[in-house]
This record gives sequence, C-alpha cells and structure tokens, in this order.
Amino acid sequence: MSIEETYLEVGSAGAVEKQFYTYAEPPGEMILESGASLGPITIAYETWGELSAKRDNAVLVAHAFSGDSHAAGFYPDEPKDAKPGWWDSMIGPGKGLDTDKYFVICANILGGCMGTTGPSSINPKTGAPYGLDFPMMTVGDIIESQKILLDHLGISSLHTVTGGSVGGMQVLEWCVRYPEMVRSAIPIATTMRHSALAIAFNEVARQAIMVDPKWNRGNYYDSEKPDLGLSVARMIGHVTYLSDEAMRRKFGRKLQNKANFSYGFDVDFMVESYLRYQGSQFVKRFDANSVLYITKAADYFDLVNREPPAKSIQDILAMPIKFLVISYTSDWLYPTYQAKELIQALKRADLDVSFCEIEADCGHDAFLIPDKRLGTLIGGFLDGVPRN
Amino acid sequence: MSIEETYLEVGSAGAVEKQFYTYAEPPGEMILESGASLGPITIAYETWGELSAKRDNAVLVAHAFSGDSHAAGFYPDEPKDAKPGWWDSMIGPGKGLDTDKYFVICANILGGCMGTTGPSSINPKTGAPYGLDFPMMTVGDIIESQKILLDHLGISSLHTVTGGSVGGMQVLEWCVRYPEMVRSAIPIATTMRHSALAIAFNEVARQAIMVDPKWNRGNYYDSEKPDLGLSVARMIGHVTYLSDEAMRRKFGRKLQNKANFSYGFDVDFMVESYLRYQGSQFVKRFDANSVLYITKAADYFDLVNREPPAKSIQDILAMPIKFLVISYTSDWLYPTYQAKELIQALKRADLDVSFCEIEADCGHDAFLIPDKRLGTLIGGFLDGVPRN
Repeated sequence: MSIEETYLEVGSAGAVEKQFYTYAEPPGEMILESGASLGPITIAYETWGELSAKRDNAVLVAHAFSGDSHAAGFYPDEPKDAKPGWWDSMIGPGKGLDTDKYFVICANILGGCMGTTGPSSINPKTGAPYGLDFPMMTVGDIIESQKILLDHLGISSLHTVTGGSVGGMQVLEWCVRYPEMVRSAIPIATTMRHSALAIAFNEVARQAIMVDPKWNRGNYYDSEKPDLGLSVARMIGHVTYLSDEAMRRKFGRKLQNKANFSYGFDVDFMVESYLRYQGSQFVKRFDANSVLYITKAADYFDLVNREPPAKSIQDILAMPIKFLVISYTSDWLYPTYQAKELIQALKRADLDVSFCEIEADCGHDAFLIPDKRLGTLIGGFLDGVPRN
Repeated sequence: MSIEETYLEVGSAGAVEKQFYTYAEPPGEMILESGASLGPITIAYETWGELSAKRDNAVLVAHAFSGDSHAAGFYPDEPKDAKPGWWDSMIGPGKGLDTDKYFVICANILGGCMGTTGPSSINPKTGAPYGLDFPMMTVGDIIESQKILLDHLGISSLHTVTGGSVGGMQVLEWCVRYPEMVRSAIPIATTMRHSALAIAFNEVARQAIMVDPKWNRGNYYDSEKPDLGLSVARMIGHVTYLSDEAMRRKFGRKLQNKANFSYGFDVDFMVESYLRYQGSQFVKRFDANSVLYITKAADYFDLVNREPPAKSIQDILAMPIKFLVISYTSDWLYPTYQAKELIQALKRADLDVSFCEIEADCGHDAFLIPDKRLGTLIGGFLDGVPRN
C-alpha cells in the first residue's frame, strides 16, 4: 500500500487507549535541571503498532506546545464525529510513520495537563494541585521523563525521534542527552534556540494569563479559572501559528454575519470570530498554568549555549545520528533561516544531514495539516536508516 | 543648510504650544460615517513654520495610532531632558518637512486622548466621560475633523499630507475625500486596506483590554483603570512594530539581570523586560478606550471597497495628486507587497506615483526612527511639487 493511497485514511492507526506509567521506584523523584526535585511523576502515553522482537523499531513522537499523547486514531468510546489524534495523517499502516513497520510512542509532556504530571496535578506533599509550587521544568526535563518511560517499556534504542515546534526542540534535546539511543532524528518547524521574537510572543501570552485576577498566582483550581486571560493568550498564539498569506486566503476582510460594519466592538470580521472561537475552545481543554510552564521551557531552550558553558555542538552531538531537518516557507515563528542555522551547526559536527523546506502558505501550523509530501519524505528517510 | 547637516538637530523646530479649536458653530455637530452625530468637538493641534501670504505652503502631518499633535520641538515649560515631538527628525529648518518653507500642522486624531475629543472626553449630554457612548468613528471621520480645523485656519490647499501607519491611511483618505485640496501625498509604511493579520493583532489587543474587569464596559474614568489589560495590549502592539531582525539585534537571548535563569515567571530575558516596561509606560499616557476606537477605525479602513460599493479607485481619486509611496523592507505589519498593491491601483488611475522601499531592519516603527534617507527623500520630492 503506497503512502499516497493511504495518508488520508483517517483513523487507520485504529483504536488506541491512553496508558499511564507512574514512576515511583525509589528514589521516585526526578532531579530537574533547575535543581528542584519532583516526584513521583506519572506519564500518560499512547502507542501504535507492535514492538519488534529485537526491540529495534521504536519511534518516539514528541508533541508540540498544546498537543498531547493522542497523536493518531480514536479512543474506543468516542462518538463517531470525534476528531482523530493530532498527527493521524502521519501515523498508521503505510503512512509516514508506518505502523506496519514501527512501534510508535507518544507521551504527554511533563508540565502538561493531559495525564502527565503538571501544575494541575496533585502535589503529594499537600494533597492539593501544585499550582506555582510545581517546579519549573525544561525541555531537558521533558526528555528525562520520556527516558523514564522508555526504560519502563524496555526500549533502549529509537529508530527515530520526531516532532514539530516544541516537539522539534525535544527531538534535538534527545540527540544531546541520549545520542547513543537515537539512530535518526527529524526536527520539524523548529529552532535550536528560541528567538527574541518567539520569547516576546510567549511573554505576552503569559502576561495575558497572569493579569487575569482569576489566575490568582496560579491558585485557581478550587474556584473560577482564568478563562479570559487564557483565551487571549491562545488568540496571540493562533496568530503566530498562521501566516499573512494563510490569513488572507482564509479570511481576508470577509465579514462574519453582517452586510455592513457593526460600528461597535462585537465581531465584524471573520478573523475576529475565528480567534475568539479558538480562545473559547482552548479554555475547555487546557490548563492556564501549563501554558506558563511550557512556554517558559521553550523560551529557555538553547541547544548551543548550555551548561557547562564551553561545550560546542560537536561535543554534545557525539554519535552519528542521521538527521532530516524540515522547515516551511511561510513559518515566521521558526523561519527557514533558523533551520539553516541548525543544519550548519550539525554539518560542522560532521553529521549526516538532509534538509527539506516545504512550500506551504499556512504558516507554522503547516506540519499539523495533512500533506502527502511530509509523509512521503519521512517514510522514505526512515527506510534509509539502518536498524542497527 | 543641507538636510544631512541638520536632521539630527534635535528640537530645531523650536518651542511649540498645543492649541485647541472647538467646533461649536451651528449645527456644532459632525455626522459620522456610521450615521451617528458627535459634537461639539475640540481639536488639539500644533504648528511649525509660517503660513505664506498666499496660503499655499501648508503641510498636514497625520500621526499614527498612539501619536499625538506633538510632532516636533519642545513645549516651553518642559524639563531639559524631555523628549522632543515624535517626528522631530523630520520637522524643522532644513529638515525633510522644512519649516523655512512650509507651515506644518499636526492635529490629534478624533477618538484619541491627547486633547481632541475622544471617549475620555466629557459628553455634553451627560456631563460625564463618553466611554462607550462615544460613537464609533472611522478614518474618514478623522479626515472630516481635520478638514474642520483647516477651514478654521483658512487653509484650502495642502502642499502635501503625510504620515506613517494609521497616519498613512489618513493620507490616502484625504486624497479620496478632498482631492482638490491635496497637491501631493506621502503615505508611509501603510496599506490601502487592513489585512486579516493586522485585524487579528488589533482584535487580540482589544480583547486584552476588554477582559480586564477594571475595563467595566468602558466605564472606568471614576475608578481604577484597566491598566493591566492595556499594558498587555501595548505589549502585543510593540511586538508587531519591531521585526525579527531588530529583536535579534537589540535583544537576542540576552538576560536582563542575572547570570542564570530564574526558573520562575519573573523577567529572565531582556526582551521580556523591554515589553513589560513599554506596557507600564503606555498606561500612564494613553486611554484604553481610545485604543479600542482607533484600532477599530484602522480595521475598518479600506480605500477600495467603499460605499457606494461600485466605485473604483479611478472614480475616487479624481485629481492629479503626486504620490510618493514609502515602505520598509522589514515591516511585516504593512509589508512592501501592500505598498505595491497601492501603487498598482494608483497607476491604474493614471496618477503620478513615485515609490521607495527603504532598507531597514527595524520593522514597522522604522518611519519613526531618525534616518537621513527619509528626510532627503521627502524634502526632494516636495521641492518637485508645483505650488499651484
């Protein structure tokens, strides 16, 4: 079955169940990059396909900022009109991450709010949600939590690790922390360090949440939530995930309902309605504190300037990992020039790097939109990665 | 004296006083584009240079979103370390808008909060500030208020009208409403219609204000102001006024005060500190409701699709106005492709159009930053515009 024929076969990865692993073995704690300790932690994850007898076909998918472990297929009890997982177009038989060949794993990130321990989880020391007592975590800490899960699953080598955006940062961090475990890496629509522009947008989103009086310094789990602030934060994010071109094509200056302007502050333009809707939907499924923690982890991310300071990327990326770097022409959050900076750094470390800039006008979110080209590209690349 | 020698002579336009004109003659009301009436209105304005005996050397400067009438020089009673007006580098003897030649006028826009009637002004019908009872105004209504001022000053022809951003929209609107009064027009860093992206950013800024409980549906003049929401709105604006390049150069990933990350939600990066500072300063000088009204007027702006609907730009721009259109390479709010759309429309109307895209990495705000090139360009262009 060719990728072309199947990539749109929605839900072909089949039914999937969210699983949970609680890391409670002594010491039962993670020591985070900040020096803080956290534990016990629970990791929510889902898997597709079968692990080979040699345990050499595992693929780790790292999700983006607001994603979760539900990367493909449907839950058994879902209504018929439910949406499949967020990368359903990539995961399934014959797809880019071919579940006839690979055992695909996706875990909710540390600090998230979709099953893995985060600020909305219960702090065992107090019996109440962590809130701002949750220690600040980094992309490196996210990788350590995924390593704990892989140890639990008995997986010591990954055929590839892939993901877009903050997921791409995790891909790079895997190569730095456990290069001996990673045979290939596919960072997509990402950067090797967060730019001032990206930090700026994250900071505005955080401020939008923190100025909401209902945020209450992160202590809102027993009362009304800071939905208004979180909604504005999501609206800011959504503008950065699209592109000027995509917004012109999708919305232009089309009015939402009326023949004429309202001459007021209700919705006039379709793009206003779209953003308000995105904001209002997001608050139903996402925790405001998780936005704070995850955006901060992204801002801290810097593949090159690490502790101890003197290390070069050559020192860091010690193993001969094969790379496929993918960027999108209209992504202005992590533009192609940043992918090229990454490639130059990898090439200076004598690594085997392929690069593809995909022509797409839909901005940063392009990697989430079903597109044959991405599946074909990744499927072909993975076929060329030796199993051992 | 050449432009090159003088453009940095700060405050060379001299002392200036803010003046006020209240249009109270019967009917003493403006009928706005929405159909609503507003009046009496007061217009705050400042002037530099002398009106010629023939009254043929007037230049109108239209300010941007958060600007005001104070375009150059100093107020007589200001402390020595005060900043000069916002376009001081352009206005003065020998500068681009040469006050030895031209009588320069700048008026605070309708809906603003710097002396001209706006939502924070007293509603004569109630004796209290308008708040949301202020009728929605458009860029066209701003032009009508400026026309009232010019009538009062006895000026029936403009050597040029110029301005950047929302000021550029006013330039274009002048050409449409009173083409017989305008000999030349210099729209800078602007667009002939607000794009979906620009509307999106404005809408997020408005939402940031309106979700602040202290906004109280615009009724906050007797109590605490929605400073937190307004501050977030300004932070959003500031990101759009800069550029990826400018932010990399200015901030990069520099930390504000510390050698290490705070692993918390205080300021880590210099860019965070900069944005918070910009937000905190803005609330001291600007009214949140004015942000709502002015951003909405900008969103409504569309030079081409006007009532009555069938009119083409040829019908609208009836007079042979000379145009100088200026854009900046790194302006992503009103990118050069939008300037080119304007130029094509003007050329189709057989108008005399010059165009310059200025190479600058500082984003949309480039037109506000002292730069010899802009003064030279505008000074030379104006010399070539016949006086009658």
